[in-house]
Amino acid sequence: MRTDFPICPLQDYMMIERESQQEEDNSVSDRLERLKLQYSESGMRRSAEALIVVTHRGFPHVLVVQVANAFYKLPGGYLDPSESFEDGLITRLNEQLGVPESTAPNWLLARNKEAGDWKVRECVSMWYRPNFDTFFYPYLPPQHTHPKEIKKVFMVELPPKKIFAVPANMKLHAIPVYELYDNAARYGPLFAGIPHILSK
Amino acid sequence: MRTDFPICPLQDYMMIERESQQEEDNSVSDRLERLKLQYSESGMRRSAEALIVVTHRGFPHVLVVQVANAFYKLPGGYLDPSESFEDGLITRLNEQLGVPESTAPNWLLARNKEAGDWKVRECVSMWYRPNFDTFFYPYLPPQHTHPKEIKKVFMVELPPKKIFAVPANMKLHAIPVYELYDNAARYGPLFAGIPHILSK
Repeated sequence: MRTDFPICPLQDYMMIERESQQEEDNSVSDRLERLKLQYSESGMRRSAEALIVVTHRGFPHVLVVQVANAFYKLPGGYLDPSESFEDGLITRLNEQLGVPESTAPNWLLARNKEAGDWKVRECVSMWYRPNFDTFFYPYLPPQHTHPKEIKKVFMVELPPKKIFAVPANMKLHAIPVYELYDNAARYGPLFAGIPHILSK
Repeated sequence: MRTDFPICPLQDYMMIERESQQEEDNSVSDRLERLKLQYSESGMRRSAEALIVVTHRGFPHVLVVQVANAFYKLPGGYLDPSESFEDGLITRLNEQLGVPESTAPNWLLARNKEAGDWKVRECVSMWYRPNFDTFFYPYLPPQHTHPKEIKKVFMVELPPKKIFAVPANMKLHAIPVYELYDNAARYGPLFAGIPHILSK
């Protein structure tokens, strides 16, 4: 993998805990109901997710959020209709994994500010949700002209020595690329394709 | 999928037949023996393959060669140690799917020349064969510092109205991207990752 920005070792980063962040919906059906409501109000939903790569023992790993000891997702989330993909992704990353300004000690905030901010780089993958169900595809299937959601995945550059604040109900894992490869059964097809995306 | 070159409909292209091209090795063990011999003579083998995309009924399809009604492969092949990836890929494409200059009628050669040549664009994926066996990975696994083969996959731009000459023992298929998606069981992990690679 070659990037036009540096990839740093995992041990350069510090992780602290922040307050729990509950999922906005309690069930899949609640989630789909909200998607339908949003679609009727403001059209296709837009999401942005971050592909953040670090090295560990010299091998590339991807940072992945695990919610409630259950499912895995890339950091990021839904955008407000007024947000651009790039700005919205930075906002979601700060909400999800940023050091909370109201509760963190000043020295930590200062150190984190010194480290610098994440930078959104190339869009490396785009996924469509053609229907009001849970399936996304890396293309818009034939005969589907009105996707319900579009999700863009961006490479995100991590400045050296950044501090992550991980919500208490989540875990942040660094998963080696070989663990994701050809492993849609465990991680789903989006994650299983990350090695291909990173291979160029 | 967005490319910085035009993607043309399948029906713009004409396919004729050319002489059979037998595989260089008759069995997997023969193939691995040859790889070992080449490795001892000239080090890591290099291969280049072409990701050629056309539209059909408005949907992206990938051109895939099927050998002897059996396995599928992308057009391309091994490079000589002196060939660059880009020039070698053009040579392999002309040997495999080009109109043969010695046997084709002049009007066909003229029409094909007028259409223009394939153009090698971005390298979109890199695969490593770490051992003397049949497995390739889109990364070099940890503890493997001397891969036996590296394979680069390039987007290849197809000029409108190009003529393909397909060897009599092969078929050239245009496979829709949705057929490859999440289908490593049928097409293998390289093909199953093509939708991810094309999704950006």
